[in-house]
Amino acid sequence: MKELTVSLAERSYPIMIGSGLLGNAQLIVGRLPTPRVVVVSNETVAPLYLKRLLGPLVSAGVRVTEVILPDGESFKTGETLNLIYDAMLKDRCDRTTTVIALGGGVIGDMAGYAAATYQRGVPFIQIPTTLLSQVDSSVGGKTGINHPRGKNMIGAFWQPQLVLADTDVLQTLPRRELSAGLAEVIKYGLIRDYAFLEWIEANIDRLMQCDAEALAYAIERSCRNKAEVVASDERETAKDGGRALLNLGHTFGHAIETGLGYGEWLHGEAVGAGTMMAAELSRRLGWLNAEDVVRIRSLLIRAGLPVVGPALGPERYFELMGHDKKVLAGKLRLVLLKKLGEAITYGEASRKDIEAAIAACCVME
Amino acid sequence: MKELTVSLAERSYPIMIGSGLLGNAQLIVGRLPTPRVVVVSNETVAPLYLKRLLGPLVSAGVRVTEVILPDGESFKTGETLNLIYDAMLKDRCDRTTTVIALGGGVIGDMAGYAAATYQRGVPFIQIPTTLLSQVDSSVGGKTGINHPRGKNMIGAFWQPQLVLADTDVLQTLPRRELSAGLAEVIKYGLIRDYAFLEWIEANIDRLMQCDAEALAYAIERSCRNKAEVVASDERETAKDGGRALLNLGHTFGHAIETGLGYGEWLHGEAVGAGTMMAAELSRRLGWLNAEDVVRIRSLLIRAGLPVVGPALGPERYFELMGHDKKVLAGKLRLVLLKKLGEAITYGEASRKDIEAAIAACCVME
Repeated sequence: MKELTVSLAERSYPIMIGSGLLGNAQLIVGRLPTPRVVVVSNETVAPLYLKRLLGPLVSAGVRVTEVILPDGESFKTGETLNLIYDAMLKDRCDRTTTVIALGGGVIGDMAGYAAATYQRGVPFIQIPTTLLSQVDSSVGGKTGINHPRGKNMIGAFWQPQLVLADTDVLQTLPRRELSAGLAEVIKYGLIRDYAFLEWIEANIDRLMQCDAEALAYAIERSCRNKAEVVASDERETAKDGGRALLNLGHTFGHAIETGLGYGEWLHGEAVGAGTMMAAELSRRLGWLNAEDVVRIRSLLIRAGLPVVGPALGPERYFELMGHDKKVLAGKLRLVLLKKLGEAITYGEASRKDIEAAIAACCVME
Repeated sequence: MKELTVSLAERSYPIMIGSGLLGNAQLIVGRLPTPRVVVVSNETVAPLYLKRLLGPLVSAGVRVTEVILPDGESFKTGETLNLIYDAMLKDRCDRTTTVIALGGGVIGDMAGYAAATYQRGVPFIQIPTTLLSQVDSSVGGKTGINHPRGKNMIGAFWQPQLVLADTDVLQTLPRRELSAGLAEVIKYGLIRDYAFLEWIEANIDRLMQCDAEALAYAIERSCRNKAEVVASDERETAKDGGRALLNLGHTFGHAIETGLGYGEWLHGEAVGAGTMMAAELSRRLGWLNAEDVVRIRSLLIRAGLPVVGPALGPERYFELMGHDKKVLAGKLRLVLLKKLGEAITYGEASRKDIEAAIAACCVME
């Protein structure tokens, strides 16, 4: 088992990565203020892993409330959130009850947001079951739900007490979701860790074959990168850089997800195509050369990711991007690449350049 | 103008108390990260005071989105909250937009919760327009909404940048709401400030006549008491005492509010009758004597408050109290009085004693 720490003063917490963690109740029980938990999962994950988690917990004397939600980004809504609140209130959970998220990013975001807001906040543990959530959303404390007008528009920062990334569960992960997770892994290489980018290029086939050792290394190094960024800028308040850099490809990607309706593309897939748009814009601004762009494109393709966005039309993209949280005081701030391994936030790109970059990376109408 | 500070390290903020503050745009403009605000008010308060606030703000170049909600505790729901989110998203508010609450406790709680959760948190300013919200809910960062199963069950801690308590607005406050506010003023005397309790006893008639000077003093001293308690225990995590002491009468009071349905009794009225129940239980435990209880009763009556709860039946009270957030790990912890001017949290009262205290202070079926 590998362990690393997200350093946030009194809110610091460990990330544990390895095999067999899900059934190791002692990792969890020692962190509960009272032996009382709510496990939030979904209809896909629960049949596979809920018993493995709950058996040892119940044996250890923990009282459990189960909340099994429908699966998918389209259910990341206020209505689904209410199912968690309802179950917690019905079972009289109090402020010492710990919420455990067992699932991917959608479950983590919703369970985390329920933990942040139930009786103004209760303890929270993340057990991510997708590569995407293991390397990204389970670390850093972002929680929330979608709104018909925009993704993740309602939410809170709420740090977990513990993140358990069990690599065993990735063996049942659909190929498409593995690829979606790799989009974020590649992102860490692109924005701040060139040596890791080279490692991914050399090991992408092992990762695609679900090689346990390669995956564990990629997860650990990704989490280490993310933990460093989060520790430097917990609430994304840095004016330049900081946490915002983690959003490479995300503003473009959110436009894809919102434009198609949540759930059509996986988040990581949208980030894949969005990363190409960001790379193309970076080339137009003179920071990347054509070879860099080809290299990114080639890696994304080998990771099974789309490198071309859907045919929404560049203007519609631009409009959808305007609703993104990264818009500070009306200006469209994007994360772009100064070079491979170094990202910046940039608010001076012209609408013309942005739309040209989109046009170069999306299906034409 | 009086000014005092709630000391919470980097989240510290001033409370300004006095006449004419509402129309003094400079107090507000200097604290906005960008000249962009959302003012949340209700159908009762907006016609009286919205123009007085907005005129100078707009003249100072601030762009304003208005959200006028229906008035009343029964609208403190997720649905009403969505009206705020919708308006903010429609007008493309971003993370630098400041939410201003103009209204009583319900508006402050809902606008504050919207501020805490819109795009994971935006700046917030409180302009409380009732005595209750000026002395209590606008200070301390508690925000939230009700759930059909319990009051304030969904919420967040979110500190404002500024609280403006304009004493002029109290002149239009209905008598019943003035009394409700005095319930919390009296509470500060009872739980931690015996000298203030004596001052209230000597000045209750002036307060009931809306004497401006007496009100300003009562507000300032109440806020000072609350600020000290909040500074010592921001998130109500102290095991004993701390912020929980501010809930004298509230666990009983919540049972009244929930049992009758939100909105029947004002919060302060429920706290009035609840305070009598807490006092009676404190007497049964040997801490107060009969004379103390009579003194509290007399002051509450002079403040125009109910001292007898509705006929729900002691068992139903007890059941409704079990859903209160003050229940730690299944135990009913109550705030009681060791003596006049000193409160404690206590979890050892028997169900029999609790129900007897309720029976002594409620209408029989």
